Amino acid sequence: MDLTTTFAGTRGLYTGTVGLLPTLGYFHEGHLKLMELLRGQCDTLVVSVFVNPTQFNDSSDFDSYPRDFERDTGLASEHAVDILFFPEHDEVYPTGWTTIVEVGGVSQEMEGRHRAGHFTGVATVVAKLFAGLQPDLAMFGRKDAQQLAVLEAMTRDLRFPIQIIHAPLIREPDGFALSSRNVRLGRVDRERALALSRGLFQAAEQIDAGERRAERLEATVRRSVRDLEIDYVMLASQDTMTRIETLDQPAVLAAAVKVGEVRLIDNIAIDVAEGRFVPDRGLILDEASRLGTLR
Amino acid sequence: MDLTTTFAGTRGLYTGTVGLLPTLGYFHEGHLKLMELLRGQCDTLVVSVFVNPTQFNDSSDFDSYPRDFERDTGLASEHAVDILFFPEHDEVYPTGWTTIVEVGGVSQEMEGRHRAGHFTGVATVVAKLFAGLQPDLAMFGRKDAQQLAVLEAMTRDLRFPIQIIHAPLIREPDGFALSSRNVRLGRVDRERALALSRGLFQAAEQIDAGERRAERLEATVRRSVRDLEIDYVMLASQDTMTRIETLDQPAVLAAAVKVGEVRLIDNIAIDVAEGRFVPDRGLILDEASRLGTLR
Repeated sequence: MDLTTTFAGTRGLYTGTVGLLPTLGYFHEGHLKLMELLRGQCDTLVVSVFVNPTQFNDSSDFDSYPRDFERDTGLASEHAVDILFFPEHDEVYPTGWTTIVEVGGVSQEMEGRHRAGHFTGVATVVAKLFAGLQPDLAMFGRKDAQQLAVLEAMTRDLRFPIQIIHAPLIREPDGFALSSRNVRLGRVDRERALALSRGLFQAAEQIDAGERRAERLEATVRRSVRDLEIDYVMLASQDTMTRIETLDQPAVLAAAVKVGEVRLIDNIAIDVAEGRFVPDRGLILDEASRLGTLR
Repeated sequence: MDLTTTFAGTRGLYTGTVGLLPTLGYFHEGHLKLMELLRGQCDTLVVSVFVNPTQFNDSSDFDSYPRDFERDTGLASEHAVDILFFPEHDEVYPTGWTTIVEVGGVSQEMEGRHRAGHFTGVATVVAKLFAGLQPDLAMFGRKDAQQLAVLEAMTRDLRFPIQIIHAPLIREPDGFALSSRNVRLGRVDRERALALSRGLFQAAEQIDAGERRAERLEATVRRSVRDLEIDYVMLASQDTMTRIETLDQPAVLAAAVKVGEVRLIDNIAIDVAEGRFVPDRGLILDEASRLGTLR
């Protein structure tokens, strides 16, 4: 595995089809699963690690975001990553930078409403990775469903010749969505936070049983997380990422809550297959994550 | 010469180093000169023609902007262009597009103040051309001095691995700067408008004679164009594109005026060479332009 710190140095190492997995580092089994999935689809597998300051609306969240260079390097190298791109701040944000990339439409509701500037930071940094690394494929997880929609819009609108691959949301055996922020949850809060995925799974069962009213599906989730601080619970169109009253198109049932100091998001995508609405519960790990949980 | 209409189709024709000259079409000798200059620096010479609606703050200016596909095709083919990229609107702005690229800093004064949204339109469309065409070099003329600064900032900030080449401002034998908009000037207005370049040349002589005060240099230009409608006359730093009081760094003496319905810009860049301030009067044609003037 090569470790690179510059865009030019990274591009110089390519052979064949290039797949990029952009990350904020501090890998857990979710990242490792995505590396495996992308590994099968490209010749050169590039994983970028950059904790992007402009996408953190909350600077204490940025400061406390977990980082571990040695650990990430070891894990990437064990997972057949060809290039680990670990840029310094100035390589991504050169002195005097003033350019931002702003996506409208799909960025407005949910995370866009609750995290001012978040998606501008995300769209800007990914545009830089795309412009500077010129991959053929890039993979993003369904955990961040709205981010995926924002980045698909950015890629299409700016005409990057890059195929965006949706990766499944990876869950613990008990259903809890993997996130690098989970290591900041104490045992008690981890137990309380389980109400989030549990509520989404209950709503998924209602969908399987024929429920189509957004109000009812959202109420199920709200009831489950009633002891947590709720940012939003929303049934949104996958196409527009704005609320829909009725499940009559590909959608996402998404929620954000705060558990103590930790903000968590989770969702169930509802795809349409052969005229049926199919909740995507994600990929459930056989064994509990060792990396994504406080030990 | 190949004529292409899609980004993918264009990329498929490349061999070796790729140079891009983005234009709004309706070529005049200024464009042809730039094609010649870029021709010498790349293996594949791509010229794009796209009258970008988002950079026109004035829709009547967009509507009346001259267009002539046959003429441009003939001229490009005579000037050793390899690929003429002539995209439809939807190829550049796909249905439902919402993404913009915004450059701060250098975009704020002068044109930025007088043409709301202009530089966002320019930065956005050039980002698309860069992302979709992936050239190695791109050339922009010094005629649009502030645009050049905006696009250099955009390229640097978004980390495009593209070298930006400054092309000289091309002038008629009488000093008048070439512009596709010149064909909209009647003979009387063309005569009146000459006060713009004449004023700038007088200021350049003052600089050669040692004048360093912005106020004096600007006053010279203002005096010359006093019978026209002045948008601005400004001595600005090349670095920041904001006003400087004293010529003590690479600068640009820039002006925008309206002559009847036609808005014209012109400037003299003042470079620093071997500790001396050297006004760049541009490249003066030996013979009057046949293409850039009303016949």
